[in-house]
Amino acid sequence: MKNKKPLILVTNDDGITAPGIRALISVMATIGDIIVVAPDKPQSAMGHAITINNTLYLDKISKENDTIIEYTCSGTPVDCVKLAVNEILKRKPDLCVSGINHGSNSSINVIYSGTMSAAVEAGIEGIPAIGFSLLDFDWNADFEPIKSFVKKIALETLENKLPEGVILNVNFPKLKEKDIKGIKICRQAKAYYSQKFDKRQTPSGRDYYWLTGDFVNQDKGEDTDEWALENGYISVVPVQYDLTAHHTIQQLNTWNLNE
Amino acid sequence: MKNKKPLILVTNDDGITAPGIRALISVMATIGDIIVVAPDKPQSAMGHAITINNTLYLDKISKENDTIIEYTCSGTPVDCVKLAVNEILKRKPDLCVSGINHGSNSSINVIYSGTMSAAVEAGIEGIPAIGFSLLDFDWNADFEPIKSFVKKIALETLENKLPEGVILNVNFPKLKEKDIKGIKICRQAKAYYSQKFDKRQTPSGRDYYWLTGDFVNQDKGEDTDEWALENGYISVVPVQYDLTAHHTIQQLNTWNLNE
Repeated sequence: MKNKKPLILVTNDDGITAPGIRALISVMATIGDIIVVAPDKPQSAMGHAITINNTLYLDKISKENDTIIEYTCSGTPVDCVKLAVNEILKRKPDLCVSGINHGSNSSINVIYSGTMSAAVEAGIEGIPAIGFSLLDFDWNADFEPIKSFVKKIALETLENKLPEGVILNVNFPKLKEKDIKGIKICRQAKAYYSQKFDKRQTPSGRDYYWLTGDFVNQDKGEDTDEWALENGYISVVPVQYDLTAHHTIQQLNTWNLNE
Repeated sequence: MKNKKPLILVTNDDGITAPGIRALISVMATIGDIIVVAPDKPQSAMGHAITINNTLYLDKISKENDTIIEYTCSGTPVDCVKLAVNEILKRKPDLCVSGINHGSNSSINVIYSGTMSAAVEAGIEGIPAIGFSLLDFDWNADFEPIKSFVKKIALETLENKLPEGVILNVNFPKLKEKDIKGIKICRQAKAYYSQKFDKRQTPSGRDYYWLTGDFVNQDKGEDTDEWALENGYISVVPVQYDLTAHHTIQQLNTWNLNE
């Protein structure tokens, strides 16, 4: 039992060079042994995409004597987790952390998020997993104010274990450390995007579109992640990958599907 | 009230040329007015990916007098739905159908599936939505045996409406019509992939990987989609995009996160 430190897999969707993953690595290095496997380029909004019709490249970028082992992968965040678990790691890690994302993954954003999909993939593989996101899209966002909370949540997860089939979606308000009121366990707010497309023309005259839109939250519940974040709290939403709407099965059984 | 036929949006993830979407269009044309917006190339396993760092092209491929209006889109299945709803359609469609996918989207496959993500996106936009998949990966799969069931499920969905926040994930066994035993409302089986990577070398000697793996179902429940399909039934799973594991919130509130 020479080494009792937990083994922690670190990934993200903003890519290996993002300041957010550097902040996450620096916190995790105070807790355990680290292996980083992250996309070689930004992979935001990739959802749970995997690469099945293309090749995957994996490159070790850390040097021989580096204490933190780092790989880049040519695929999606979910590919990173699959390659880490099945090709790189000798044993199942004790924790997988993804992020820290530059920008929110609260509410309906969870479903588009590469950060969260990487964590969900780890959850499917039986690894306790957390996705971390800061409500600041800026590449130069300041992660210092939230580092102590990232550590606290990771340590509590290692100690308490997560319920089976559950991954944590953690979002941080963009506030100074002293202004953060605390950590709240929440449900995902019922919000959506009022989508708009910005229609433009190529130099040669062909129409194309950029996706854009406004976030609309009509959920007034005070138990939601949106409420927590707007009121100065860190939101923690337990996320599951059993997508079954169990509560509606009885209702659907009243349909005349077999007549 | 000149036209009381329902307006139906058709999409998929195998691309506009796939036989599966042609089968789906032929069924839907017997029910309502159709608009097709599908990817211009295969987009399998894209999950809920959206295009935010790239341009989107949208091309109308049907002719002026065609009764069915068809567009191709350069993006993901979810992009197709967003563009259809926000750029093409004058009013919200009465139904969105996605597929028919060449291959299963039962159990954990739902989370990687572009077919289902397109349907889920429609659900988020408040449109009743169904994803259809046949357990046959073959490009020349025979969709004839399931057409009457596709129609039945679509008509029942139009008549009964879906519960709020719920999308149907429908999978068909690869059987002759007379051998299909009926339609079952199910839960998503707890299964996973035992992943393997096939490691190869490029002609110039660089290692690369292909994702591969075996589907492992250790869920013995007879209320699952896997059980239904193995026993000759069509599986219908109500899917939700509220990913909150509500039943675990109380447990997480016992953690010492705020000390």
